[in-house]
Amino acid sequence: MKKPMEQMKRECLVIGNLANLDVERESATGVPEVILARGKNAEDLCILAEKLLEKKGHVIITKAKAEHFEAIDQKIDAEKKFNKKAGVAVLKKGKIEKDKIGRVAIFAAGTADIPVAEEARIVLEEFGCEAVTGYDIGVAGMHRVFPSIERASDEDVDVIIVVAGMEGTLASVVKSMVDVPVIGVPTSIGYGYGGEGTSALMSMLQSCSPGITVVNIDNGFGAASAAYLICKRISENKGEPHA
Amino acid sequence: MKKPMEQMKRECLVIGNLANLDVERESATGVPEVILARGKNAEDLCILAEKLLEKKGHVIITKAKAEHFEAIDQKIDAEKKFNKKAGVAVLKKGKIEKDKIGRVAIFAAGTADIPVAEEARIVLEEFGCEAVTGYDIGVAGMHRVFPSIERASDEDVDVIIVVAGMEGTLASVVKSMVDVPVIGVPTSIGYGYGGEGTSALMSMLQSCSPGITVVNIDNGFGAASAAYLICKRISENKGEPHA
Amino acid sequence: MKKPMEQMKRECLVIGNLANLDVERESATGVPEVILARGKNAEDLCILAEKLLEKKGHVIITKAKAEHFEAIDQKIDAEKKFNKKAGVAVLKKGKIEKDKIGRVAIFAAGTADIPVAEEARIVLEEFGCEAVTGYDIGVAGMHRVFPSIERASDEDVDVIIVVAGMEGTLASVVKSMVDVPVIGVPTSIGYGYGGEGTSALMSMLQSCSPGITVVNIDNGFGAASAAYLICKRISENKGEPHA
Amino acid sequence: MKKPMEQMKRECLVIGNLANLDVERESATGVPEVILARGKNAEDLCILAEKLLEKKGHVIITKAKAEHFEAIDQKIDAEKKFNKKAGVAVLKKGKIEKDKIGRVAIFAAGTADIPVAEEARIVLEEFGCEAVTGYDIGVAGMHRVFPSIERASDEDVDVIIVVAGMEGTLASVVKSMVDVPVIGVPTSIGYGYGGEGTSALMSMLQSCSPGITVVNIDNGFGAASAAYLICKRISENKGEPHA
Amino acid sequence: MKKPMEQMKRECLVIGNLANLDVERESATGVPEVILARGKNAEDLCILAEKLLEKKGHVIITKAKAEHFEAIDQKIDAEKKFNKKAGVAVLKKGKIEKDKIGRVAIFAAGTADIPVAEEARIVLEEFGCEAVTGYDIGVAGMHRVFPSIERASDEDVDVIIVVAGMEGTLASVVKSMVDVPVIGVPTSIGYGYGGEGTSALMSMLQSCSPGITVVNIDNGFGAASAAYLICKRISENKGEPHA
Amino acid sequence: MKKPMEQMKRECLVIGNLANLDVERESATGVPEVILARGKNAEDLCILAEKLLEKKGHVIITKAKAEHFEAIDQKIDAEKKFNKKAGVAVLKKGKIEKDKIGRVAIFAAGTADIPVAEEARIVLEEFGCEAVTGYDIGVAGMHRVFPSIERASDEDVDVIIVVAGMEGTLASVVKSMVDVPVIGVPTSIGYGYGGEGTSALMSMLQSCSPGITVVNIDNGFGAASAAYLICKRISENKGEPHA
Amino acid sequence: MKKPMEQMKRECLVIGNLANLDVERESATGVPEVILARGKNAEDLCILAEKLLEKKGHVIITKAKAEHFEAIDQKIDAEKKFNKKAGVAVLKKGKIEKDKIGRVAIFAAGTADIPVAEEARIVLEEFGCEAVTGYDIGVAGMHRVFPSIERASDEDVDVIIVVAGMEGTLASVVKSMVDVPVIGVPTSIGYGYGGEGTSALMSMLQSCSPGITVVNIDNGFGAASAAYLICKRISENKGEPHA
Amino acid sequence: MKKPMEQMKRECLVIGNLANLDVERESATGVPEVILARGKNAEDLCILAEKLLEKKGHVIITKAKAEHFEAIDQKIDAEKKFNKKAGVAVLKKGKIEKDKIGRVAIFAAGTADIPVAEEARIVLEEFGCEAVTGYDIGVAGMHRVFPSIERASDEDVDVIIVVAGMEGTLASVVKSMVDVPVIGVPTSIGYGYGGEGTSALMSMLQSCSPGITVVNIDNGFGAASAAYLICKRISENKGEPHA
Repeated sequence: MKKPMEQMKRECLVIGNLANLDVERESATGVPEVILARGKNAEDLCILAEKLLEKKGHVIITKAKAEHFEAIDQKIDAEKKFNKKAGVAVLKKGKIEKDKIGRVAIFAAGTADIPVAEEARIVLEEFGCEAVTGYDIGVAGMHRVFPSIERASDEDVDVIIVVAGMEGTLASVVKSMVDVPVIGVPTSIGYGYGGEGTSALMSMLQSCSPGITVVNIDNGFGAASAAYLICKRISENKGEPHA
Repeated sequence: MKKPMEQMKRECLVIGNLANLDVERESATGVPEVILARGKNAEDLCILAEKLLEKKGHVIITKAKAEHFEAIDQKIDAEKKFNKKAGVAVLKKGKIEKDKIGRVAIFAAGTADIPVAEEARIVLEEFGCEAVTGYDIGVAGMHRVFPSIERASDEDVDVIIVVAGMEGTLASVVKSMVDVPVIGVPTSIGYGYGGEGTSALMSMLQSCSPGITVVNIDNGFGAASAAYLICKRISENKGEPHA
Repeated sequence: MKKPMEQMKRECLVIGNLANLDVERESATGVPEVILARGKNAEDLCILAEKLLEKKGHVIITKAKAEHFEAIDQKIDAEKKFNKKAGVAVLKKGKIEKDKIGRVAIFAAGTADIPVAEEARIVLEEFGCEAVTGYDIGVAGMHRVFPSIERASDEDVDVIIVVAGMEGTLASVVKSMVDVPVIGVPTSIGYGYGGEGTSALMSMLQSCSPGITVVNIDNGFGAASAAYLICKRISENKGEPHA
Repeated sequence: MKKPMEQMKRECLVIGNLANLDVERESATGVPEVILARGKNAEDLCILAEKLLEKKGHVIITKAKAEHFEAIDQKIDAEKKFNKKAGVAVLKKGKIEKDKIGRVAIFAAGTADIPVAEEARIVLEEFGCEAVTGYDIGVAGMHRVFPSIERASDEDVDVIIVVAGMEGTLASVVKSMVDVPVIGVPTSIGYGYGGEGTSALMSMLQSCSPGITVVNIDNGFGAASAAYLICKRISENKGEPHA
Repeated sequence: MKKPMEQMKRECLVIGNLANLDVERESATGVPEVILARGKNAEDLCILAEKLLEKKGHVIITKAKAEHFEAIDQKIDAEKKFNKKAGVAVLKKGKIEKDKIGRVAIFAAGTADIPVAEEARIVLEEFGCEAVTGYDIGVAGMHRVFPSIERASDEDVDVIIVVAGMEGTLASVVKSMVDVPVIGVPTSIGYGYGGEGTSALMSMLQSCSPGITVVNIDNGFGAASAAYLICKRISENKGEPHA
Repeated sequence: MKKPMEQMKRECLVIGNLANLDVERESATGVPEVILARGKNAEDLCILAEKLLEKKGHVIITKAKAEHFEAIDQKIDAEKKFNKKAGVAVLKKGKIEKDKIGRVAIFAAGTADIPVAEEARIVLEEFGCEAVTGYDIGVAGMHRVFPSIERASDEDVDVIIVVAGMEGTLASVVKSMVDVPVIGVPTSIGYGYGGEGTSALMSMLQSCSPGITVVNIDNGFGAASAAYLICKRISENKGEPHA
Repeated sequence: MKKPMEQMKRECLVIGNLANLDVERESATGVPEVILARGKNAEDLCILAEKLLEKKGHVIITKAKAEHFEAIDQKIDAEKKFNKKAGVAVLKKGKIEKDKIGRVAIFAAGTADIPVAEEARIVLEEFGCEAVTGYDIGVAGMHRVFPSIERASDEDVDVIIVVAGMEGTLASVVKSMVDVPVIGVPTSIGYGYGGEGTSALMSMLQSCSPGITVVNIDNGFGAASAAYLICKRISENKGEPHA
Repeated sequence: MKKPMEQMKRECLVIGNLANLDVERESATGVPEVILARGKNAEDLCILAEKLLEKKGHVIITKAKAEHFEAIDQKIDAEKKFNKKAGVAVLKKGKIEKDKIGRVAIFAAGTADIPVAEEARIVLEEFGCEAVTGYDIGVAGMHRVFPSIERASDEDVDVIIVVAGMEGTLASVVKSMVDVPVIGVPTSIGYGYGGEGTSALMSMLQSCSPGITVVNIDNGFGAASAAYLICKRISENKGEPHA
């Protein structure tokens, strides 16, 4: 870890009165700067993306909508990968080498939760982790969860991300059978009382299964970042105990 | 990880019509069974504690109140350690050996957040982790946070637990300067609009600093469990990458 | 069913300016009048209980507290059965004959949910149903739920009542494995965000497992009443299809 | 009921990374798998519907919108029945025989509640129940409820589903005059404070009339499923009491 | 009505730094100044009561608790009437003459709602209205409401106050059968979701029966004040239409 | 008032499975049946309007949107009056005679509150009341309220309706200067915390000025109905006191 | 300050039944009348703007949308300045002289918060204050805040406005390092639990850093008004202490 | 203002593992460190108070309860001033000289709001401001507010603090007549819907009167701090405009 007082001098990429890109974020906080498209218009987004691409050669954009994809497609010159269901765009210039650092299982309770799960998967893969997915395995058909847990176990994953809307039960059920950290991502799938992710978020926070931590509703990127930091820490470990 | 279908045969310690203690929980889920005193009367608590003590030789009780401590003190014959501020009792019979597995920093924003931080600390230490604490370092006096982060960095901690009530700002601020996972524990300290932990919980879930995950309000034990699982995974790693 | 317009002439037992006891409720609505102690002082409760006892010979009181039990004990002359954990008092005068009408399983997720489960059990038994219980079988130790479901299946129960606080997950999990109606009773056990039963109620209402219906938080009596009506309807059926 | 541990081997129809259709759900949980259109795009919906149709010959789709109906209409080759107000599509291939199993009354408080009531009606009829409807009978004109209750009584229904938005009062009023179970379905009809179904849901959960259970807002399908399970249980009963 | 600008010179009875009693309130706003005990300590309450008593000869105190009644009993020299269930104290010095001005029916849904209904009744009677009561007539036994409405009709009441907790249904049901204004008073009686009066308040605000207006939870005094103003206006009318 | 049990036989105008129009509502409840357009599609609305028009010769439709106005304009043959800002359509066939019965002041706090105020005004005028309006007189410019109150006083109004969004303060301020009943209508005008009418509704329910009652957010029709019932009662009074 | 009773005669500019413009507001309350476009249609807005322009020669319009800008552009004849991102239009006729009165720093946490910050900036500049801006300096990159605070200090600002969405942490952090009043403006930027400004508002209200006051979500104009009043008061001060 | 980076070296008074007192807070942030008793036990409070007293000679404690006052009284040796209604204790050692810096009016709407107003008054006076109070002047008797505003005007106050519970209307009304900044303090006085300060807080945040800023519910100290910073800034001003 960098000394905190020294970090106070981290470089900024000032883009007019629009943004102060924190280009040393990765070395300081472990997580690369990723651009959140939500709340930005397509024009501003492209300006930020281009500047960051120039500086870093590798840009991840999350929560992008049709208008963002269109603008990026037209205005930015780079190698591009779009996953429109997940709302993620990946832009690259030149060759990016990433060490493989860990393996993460990503489970989605229902078909409608897949976009958020995919957001997490892509981010993790761009960060250098391997992803093992198990989708549509919610507890309405409890038996479907076993093979996915078994596969996660066989693959010896470091962390499991559980993406679930509605009652959000899957996180508790999974954690009751695994001995690795579980990160819950409630989704805004749901309806009526407890809809928009409220029930799923509560459910995960109230869980009786210790070892679950939670990110905010639909925050696939946040879960991926936390999982990545855990993997990174694991991969850095030399195996000897702390003095 | 144990095969999930085999876990469905995990042994239970049936205590009348009162409880089904899940005595194989540790081997299956990585986290030992801990007894939550909240919602249980002192008499029932003692019955559960005694049975578990008999079986395991080591019992941790959280969220205990005066009446619980008193009953344990009178009725249970064991080596006992009480931390009444934190609401934690530790009971032991015979010699318990634990490997040291990792190091966790625990920060508390204000004096009133210390009980929850201490709950996390004791649980972690009983689980075999080392704890590094930094208390009353909230952002009203921002400068106080730097030495604690520096110390966490020097001690090369694996995870940081940030315990904070009121506006819950400390988690975001800490995460912006560290490259390890941060687990936020909002506390019920606060008042008026956003009191009882609501503001702190929201703040941590809304954080702009990626890499924070959160447990429910005042859940020091939950944060400790998740931190412990991360440490355990790190300590188990042989240093070689996944195939 | 009685003609609705005729029911508009149902007899009332007028008790001063205090109450209008609906003494024909059972024949009209299928469910006997039961006295809710909550919100009534001990003195008024005893007056109502005595009048109803006189009229019916059999009185069930729910949500009673210490002061209510004490007053009943002192002031009312009848055969009395108290279950203080469940807050239920049963008073009888003379011989009450009830047909056995059906069998209901009652599951409780945690030790702290037992009082509400017991409220349901006693009410059901007083109404004439058989009860099959399975307590402390929540999903933190998933394997514990199987034997209870198996027993419910062996006993060929007509309905299952699932009592659960915290994340309230048990109802969904149980329903995914049974082909009888499940009635969920969220309990006020829980803490922080989603506490006081909110999370459990939401979870049950959001359930992906079709066939669950829900009563309000801690309403063991309500669940028992609905289960009883189902059993009654089943027991009345002669086996021939509707014309 | 099937043994729960055996159910853990229930067959799944895996559809790429999109879905794990639980094709043995009916035999295990009593309720056939029905496809929820909400949250799915039209293309994915058609894939799922076609696969299920192939397997089962009979598919019910709920909460469908214009785009879903259009896609189904164009892409799926089957006998189709659409009820666009209710958002329900029924697809059949070949001859489906269903036993008649019970009779359910469905009441709707206002004209705006009819779509949800119709969702319940169609699902019930597809499941094999008879439906008796009484619409626009809310308590603003109390007298309108009597003929509907009378008809339900004459038809000897097994269960009554009450669909109501606004203050949701109808459920309590109906239950006060009938001796069969009542399932309340609050609807999102309403406005201002308590709108979007909140008031109706609360009202039904707070009801003073015992014997009401509730499903989530607008969940006509959920109410139909629960009512169907009750009817099924009744129709299976041979009339002799449990041993 | 007094000219508003002139009212800006209404006399105040200044009591140290404690209160500015608005002694001309009755002539200006139609409603006499009444002292709310809630939020005041017993000592301050007595000072205010005594000053007002001196000035007006007639004081009504609402929401008084045991400690307030005790202090009034000991410290104030006047003719006193206490209704402890309703939390109302009435103090008089000398002879108070009030014209009879109208008749109000007060209905309470359940036994637990009676204290609030009684608060309204006493205030109305002190203001000079006649009160007609009908208690414990909630819709769980619908038939009980008819005789009370009939009596209100026979007595030709000007307004009906409906006091109800739980689902608060009674207000809608009553209004559907009467042609006078109905004022709803939700009470804090209730539990779980929608408890503390929330459900009752929503229910009354969402009512489909036009002609209901509402006051805040447990505000018997507020309902009485509004009913009184209506009665007063009616009694002042000379029968001739407005020009 | 009609005897309540006789009302249970009130005539209904059954319109297929769509509606049960309560055509005797006016004589029974004092308020004519008015059609709420919200939640109905244009086609159904026109069917209901036409049937009611045929029966009564006079139809009021509230909360109509562009599509409703258009459909009414094209499909219904009658004398029509549209106020699109207020969302009200009035349809007449033949000559409708209404007695003038009372006078109501309608105040609106801001320009944005005028549509709801106009809804109330039109309904009142159609019911036969005179309306006195004072718009944009909110407390940000306190002085603007005086002339309106003065005018209401000069016109000797029977009731004042106060329509206000944002902080909803106007109701309290007006009531502090008038001796007639005040009916508050919170509007959904507002933003951020307390927006969508929440703050205005709370403010009116919490008011320190006794004599205010409240209807739900934006419910201009509800306020008009209650005001009309008060006026009707006043106009019916012969001036002699109740026996 | 003007005598309050005299203010009750403040002039109004009556615009039909549409508005009562409070044209003396500035001299009375210190803040000029500004027109809020939200909730007004474009036509009405232009009428108000034109009348006020005529009277004052200087009009500020906030929260304008595309349709408002278009209408102003076409219908109003004046010198116009539009900032569409900020939703602000400034109209002038003739020469407006304003004294410079104070200096205010405006900080925005993220790029998405800039529109609200710009609303505050333009309003302040139109009122005669100097503005010093620092944008995209949120705590995810803590180091970015130091240069902005330093600049505010160098420029000797009188007040700092902090505009922040998400967790709203920036206000607390800034206030912990400055000795001038800080006004927090939470923005509706955010998502999931605590979204739409809730978390940011709570965070600022719960702040441990004394000296922060808050306006409602997105209320850039409100913050500017308060900051302006502080500056005005400072600039009016002659330096001598109060007698 | 001190340079922010230099502030990062502000001195701390470390008190075991209990607190890091920020003893340079006043010079850095303008507001002296004040001890909040809420959430601290009496013993810890006394330790903190004593250490701070030793260092500074002047300690203010807010939100103290009986047990805190008692402990301070017994354990701390200093000149003490207690205001138990306001929950404030002031401790001094030796002579403290404070410059008089400004004048603040403090208004309280009702008698029950006085404790919070007094908290603000005492803090302000200890900080060196003059306070002008006007209590029990809420809008139920609107006329009472004029003399207080007039007095504030005569005294030429720099800021007005308005303390109000219930509907919180007073802040808007006052601001509509004054040209100085107004700081609103909602109080937890209130009941039912909008109680515990919610309505008052919303009301102040929604205010149509620009120039109001708000602190959290019951936060008299926070309002005093902000008012003090404004006064301090005013008193420091030399009268010449910024360059």
